[in-house]
Amino acid sequence: MSGNSIGRHFVVTSGGESHGPALVGIVDGCPPGLELSAADLQRDLDRRKPGQSRHTTQRRESDTVEILSGVFEGRTTGTPIGLLIRNEDQRSHDYSAIADRYRPGHADYSYDQKYGIRDYRGGGRSSARETAIRVAAGAIAKKYLADRLGITIRGYLSQLGPLQPRGFDWEQVGCNPFFWPCAETVPDLEHYMDALRKSGDSIGAAVTVVASGMPTGLGEPVFDRLDAEIAHALMSINAVKGVEIGAGFACITQTGSEHRDAMTPDGFLSNNAGGILGGISTGQDIIARLALKPTSSLRLPGQSIDRQGTAVEVITTGRHDPCVGIRATPIAEAMLALVLMDHVLRQRGQNAEVVPPLPAIPASPHSLI
Amino acid sequence: MSGNSIGRHFVVTSGGESHGPALVGIVDGCPPGLELSAADLQRDLDRRKPGQSRHTTQRRESDTVEILSGVFEGRTTGTPIGLLIRNEDQRSHDYSAIADRYRPGHADYSYDQKYGIRDYRGGGRSSARETAIRVAAGAIAKKYLADRLGITIRGYLSQLGPLQPRGFDWEQVGCNPFFWPCAETVPDLEHYMDALRKSGDSIGAAVTVVASGMPTGLGEPVFDRLDAEIAHALMSINAVKGVEIGAGFACITQTGSEHRDAMTPDGFLSNNAGGILGGISTGQDIIARLALKPTSSLRLPGQSIDRQGTAVEVITTGRHDPCVGIRATPIAEAMLALVLMDHVLRQRGQNAEVVPPLPAIPASPHSLI
Amino acid sequence: MSGNSIGRHFVVTSGGESHGPALVGIVDGCPPGLELSAADLQRDLDRRKPGQSRHTTQRRESDTVEILSGVFEGRTTGTPIGLLIRNEDQRSHDYSAIADRYRPGHADYSYDQKYGIRDYRGGGRSSARETAIRVAAGAIAKKYLADRLGITIRGYLSQLGPLQPRGFDWEQVGCNPFFWPCAETVPDLEHYMDALRKSGDSIGAAVTVVASGMPTGLGEPVFDRLDAEIAHALMSINAVKGVEIGAGFACITQTGSEHRDAMTPDGFLSNNAGGILGGISTGQDIIARLALKPTSSLRLPGQSIDRQGTAVEVITTGRHDPCVGIRATPIAEAMLALVLMDHVLRQRGQNAEVVPPLPAIPASPHSLI
Amino acid sequence: MSGNSIGRHFVVTSGGESHGPALVGIVDGCPPGLELSAADLQRDLDRRKPGQSRHTTQRRESDTVEILSGVFEGRTTGTPIGLLIRNEDQRSHDYSAIADRYRPGHADYSYDQKYGIRDYRGGGRSSARETAIRVAAGAIAKKYLADRLGITIRGYLSQLGPLQPRGFDWEQVGCNPFFWPCAETVPDLEHYMDALRKSGDSIGAAVTVVASGMPTGLGEPVFDRLDAEIAHALMSINAVKGVEIGAGFACITQTGSEHRDAMTPDGFLSNNAGGILGGISTGQDIIARLALKPTSSLRLPGQSIDRQGTAVEVITTGRHDPCVGIRATPIAEAMLALVLMDHVLRQRGQNAEVVPPLPAIPASPHSLI
Repeated sequence: MSGNSIGRHFVVTSGGESHGPALVGIVDGCPPGLELSAADLQRDLDRRKPGQSRHTTQRRESDTVEILSGVFEGRTTGTPIGLLIRNEDQRSHDYSAIADRYRPGHADYSYDQKYGIRDYRGGGRSSARETAIRVAAGAIAKKYLADRLGITIRGYLSQLGPLQPRGFDWEQVGCNPFFWPCAETVPDLEHYMDALRKSGDSIGAAVTVVASGMPTGLGEPVFDRLDAEIAHALMSINAVKGVEIGAGFACITQTGSEHRDAMTPDGFLSNNAGGILGGISTGQDIIARLALKPTSSLRLPGQSIDRQGTAVEVITTGRHDPCVGIRATPIAEAMLALVLMDHVLRQRGQNAEVVPPLPAIPASPHSLI
Repeated sequence: MSGNSIGRHFVVTSGGESHGPALVGIVDGCPPGLELSAADLQRDLDRRKPGQSRHTTQRRESDTVEILSGVFEGRTTGTPIGLLIRNEDQRSHDYSAIADRYRPGHADYSYDQKYGIRDYRGGGRSSARETAIRVAAGAIAKKYLADRLGITIRGYLSQLGPLQPRGFDWEQVGCNPFFWPCAETVPDLEHYMDALRKSGDSIGAAVTVVASGMPTGLGEPVFDRLDAEIAHALMSINAVKGVEIGAGFACITQTGSEHRDAMTPDGFLSNNAGGILGGISTGQDIIARLALKPTSSLRLPGQSIDRQGTAVEVITTGRHDPCVGIRATPIAEAMLALVLMDHVLRQRGQNAEVVPPLPAIPASPHSLI
Repeated sequence: MSGNSIGRHFVVTSGGESHGPALVGIVDGCPPGLELSAADLQRDLDRRKPGQSRHTTQRRESDTVEILSGVFEGRTTGTPIGLLIRNEDQRSHDYSAIADRYRPGHADYSYDQKYGIRDYRGGGRSSARETAIRVAAGAIAKKYLADRLGITIRGYLSQLGPLQPRGFDWEQVGCNPFFWPCAETVPDLEHYMDALRKSGDSIGAAVTVVASGMPTGLGEPVFDRLDAEIAHALMSINAVKGVEIGAGFACITQTGSEHRDAMTPDGFLSNNAGGILGGISTGQDIIARLALKPTSSLRLPGQSIDRQGTAVEVITTGRHDPCVGIRATPIAEAMLALVLMDHVLRQRGQNAEVVPPLPAIPASPHSLI
Repeated sequence: MSGNSIGRHFVVTSGGESHGPALVGIVDGCPPGLELSAADLQRDLDRRKPGQSRHTTQRRESDTVEILSGVFEGRTTGTPIGLLIRNEDQRSHDYSAIADRYRPGHADYSYDQKYGIRDYRGGGRSSARETAIRVAAGAIAKKYLADRLGITIRGYLSQLGPLQPRGFDWEQVGCNPFFWPCAETVPDLEHYMDALRKSGDSIGAAVTVVASGMPTGLGEPVFDRLDAEIAHALMSINAVKGVEIGAGFACITQTGSEHRDAMTPDGFLSNNAGGILGGISTGQDIIARLALKPTSSLRLPGQSIDRQGTAVEVITTGRHDPCVGIRATPIAEAMLALVLMDHVLRQRGQNAEVVPPLPAIPASPHSLI
């Protein structure tokens, strides 16, 4: 039961269905005194929101957020921050044809198995629409981390189906509708997506998120390791099927002498660890990569069953993202921010006298592609 | 602060250092009436324990577990089960040479940054020795899941450096010191490991764990999704750098029509989802794969610094596993068991009237290699 | 940090200030399939709301609740239930005179010490206005407990300053503005309150809450005992300074032979335990009593300091309850309902085969006065 | 399920039965660098242990604690502190006569209802023997609070049946076997207890605990208020039926002008609040009082039933405390220490710039009696 809260010190609780009246969130544990307004949240919400280009769903939602509590005279008070985003473009009639059928690859069947009740309006709670609250809450964390601790959290699309960037430039990420770090290959993505949309099919993708300006000492052995918590947070995003930190799966074929990051008085010489050793941050950049499956909402007919167990064919005619990975970058950033924020607050209880940290060496373009 | 507990209903709390007096665990939330003795835990502890072959560390530990509480007249009482494993072969003098130096790729530096104090005896709390308690606790969960619900949890080594199995047979997994599912290629592993040990280097590996006989409906949207909790649990194992579920990272290049698992009245036709949709179990086998880095404890000198920040060279002469992945299989099984046990108990609160589930189609050898 | 959630399975998270835009709540973990509408919550909200008689604050709030999520086609879906109550009668100008002064006996000073920031508008988060969300959430729990398990939760004002009821009748509790169980003495309360209001002073009170139709087995030893959780929940209500269960403080002078409740095949012969032994429900009525302090918001001048530490005199001219205990009955009922609901869901994981329970003997009028 | 952990940052998990092999505890979240040895814990364990005078149970237990982990070279490391206390004087044959009978006023019936299994050896988990781990863990918290923050936690027996102290002197508390603060009336207690023991009956008691040297700002609104958490912790002690803070139940008949504590530049002028306003510490002494019921283990026959529901008579012939309140003082101190320690660590995440606190005025003898 329950399961809609994340964090222990900076606790985000979320509610709301894809086609219900509203999404709602409560952020509990934000320290007092942070300058905050709805505009601070809206920026990231706008990066996530649908209908920004022809490559994402055409559902129209302004995703306007209202702060209901926890902010007084432009600053956080330390009390819970209530967040409200009304749903606007609900068109639930789009979904009536599949009210009794399980869309293959969707949560329809598993939700019905769990709850014995099904909100067939566009996925209900299982829809990625829910992530709007994550992004709004994550924006609070990002602002605190940046303003108070100089931690920057950024992400980008690191693979779209078979396509990979050929170069890397953080500046480019904000200049195209894909969060793609390589200007040269953006046209390839556009052609690929146009063809895909025409085919009625969808495609998987990978997103990479990076935290720079990291303090040392974040993460709690042994079960609440920072990497374990990041894996939890990122895997909780809809459609994610894999998470890796630093060298990730590539470490399987590495030798120890290759993998271990040498330390010098000037800092680490590489970052196979992805900024985490023994579950605790080393001060190096945190680097995490996630794999997102292709959406199962397709115009192409799929084999399935209905609630009575009869074989049926399912076609999804609603408005959907042919590559959910495209809009996932701000969501992944938000989730990484929530984990770091939580651990910043957890770590404060520590109060240890520690040895001075090594200089941090930022993630290189090489390690990011 | 804290972080040494996992689970919400079936809560495992663990303590103990590599070279301290003992490892200790408390398993809170085990339902009453389960037949249980220390022998039930010892079986999996013996599978994990060091010194079973020449391919693992030669540290000698019997890993004998004592049950301190929670079992009366051979059955669990519903009260916390205390677990005690005394350390026997501590030889802490092995480590004195590196008491002031940070071993590269180890948690020495990050622990010192966090706590300002360092237990230099073989990694202290950051040592994988801690996983003995996980295995003991996981054995309780495995027994409950098997006896009461018919859920079987099994794992195997699915890659060792560049080596992959060529065939798949569950029976073989218990017949060699590698947990390897393919008899034909065992000699390759032995030669590879012998050469590696001679070289003084180490190698990464992958482990796959599978839960069969799964009920539907386990997992709590949205943050406590079953896959998110599995990712958390598996990434919390020492040396793990990546986790994937079902198709995992391969989904990046899949199309939606390939990836989505068709449903028929006779069951699902494939298992790209790895048994989880929308964070909730579908009744198919759960399949998860984890990447383990090569250990950084090498006889080969590594570049590092000491506590004063001076450049030093570090050589690790203690007894270590040249491939930590080899002993990781029972640990990964234990962690998967703990997550499933926790969610079985969570799900019970639900009490929903649900539609009858689809027949389960077990993981095929094809999908397991 | 944080602290605005209660429960582990039936988790209520709350936000909102006395004079901010709105109160907001998220109820996570309500089982699916419960018939629920806003009207079900409104009933208890109306019992709590101000301005119902001349004996409570004259602030005008309709306390209209909107359900934002978690209910579809009139039934709960198992997903989080979002609750929104807009503040209407905020008149924050009433409070400007004390923006810089700490009202004695209020949370002004302690909040400022904790947060370094002060929402001076009527107490901000520390105002009892926050309890509206508790009452709304509690109404969901009460409905589930009543509909599915036949558990009834009722409360009444058991003392108002020096005045105690002379008789006891549950029917009377709903027939006067005091939740008073004795018709004969209602005029005494009215005279007392009229004189008190004239004097500008306030008075303490006691409230008793009772749960009938209890199942056995609720409560988790040793720290999450049912009585400990009830004490926590009731003491978390604004102005509460004491909580007792069953015989409560009277047990200090009882002997063991008086106190222990004899058991017979027909049930217990008394209920000094208040329905709980060893922290676990016995099936007898749960009886808890709470002491509420007199409000410190008085027209009578009080000695205090301002933010600069200078001595000042404080007079509170806003609209306040001269006896906060009067409106506390529905709040106490709600908190008891939340604890029981949480433990009903926790207990389900247990799945034990138990011996048949004793017949319950309801709380007698004698034990209730 | 579960329930044997308390705290969120300083988490104590406990296991062990009255007549099992051992009691075990894990303290997770103790900051690193605290000087600590088993002797620090033994002091309070010795204050709690049985057989210290003729007025408590004659069970012989040395209650020797072993620290299993988390301490290295005499200082805490920040990792979990494992605690082990072997049971020595178990004499389980004492209990065989009642293996099938429910002792009235005990947890026998409710445990059997919950778990369907009964550990009849002296109460099993429901025995107050379990509190030894609380006292050991509390001693760690007390040491940290005293050494690092100057917070002192002390308690005393404030009422024994009808007997109350006539004077108050902290020095006296350690000079008699009752933790009684008034030398003059100690002989009255001895006579009372001797007569009681002869009669075969038992008696209730009250204990008061006080924390001095308090910082401001501890406690988290709204559900995790400091007073709510104290109520939880104290009510979780075996036999406690009531908890009050500051004026407590006496506030029912107080007026607001009496109750509210005036503030001056030199501090508060009284302490009806018991050091907590709005759930947050004010820097004044925390004062809490708890009521303990008379034990139900009597030589006098009691009416009860057996497991089959048949009426039986129960006589308890084991070794029991005729007044459990006598040994409760160190337990209550420990629980208060655990709550404060947890909130000290929670509060650190806050990092607010606050106004300077008022000078604290210590609890006066007047307010303590």
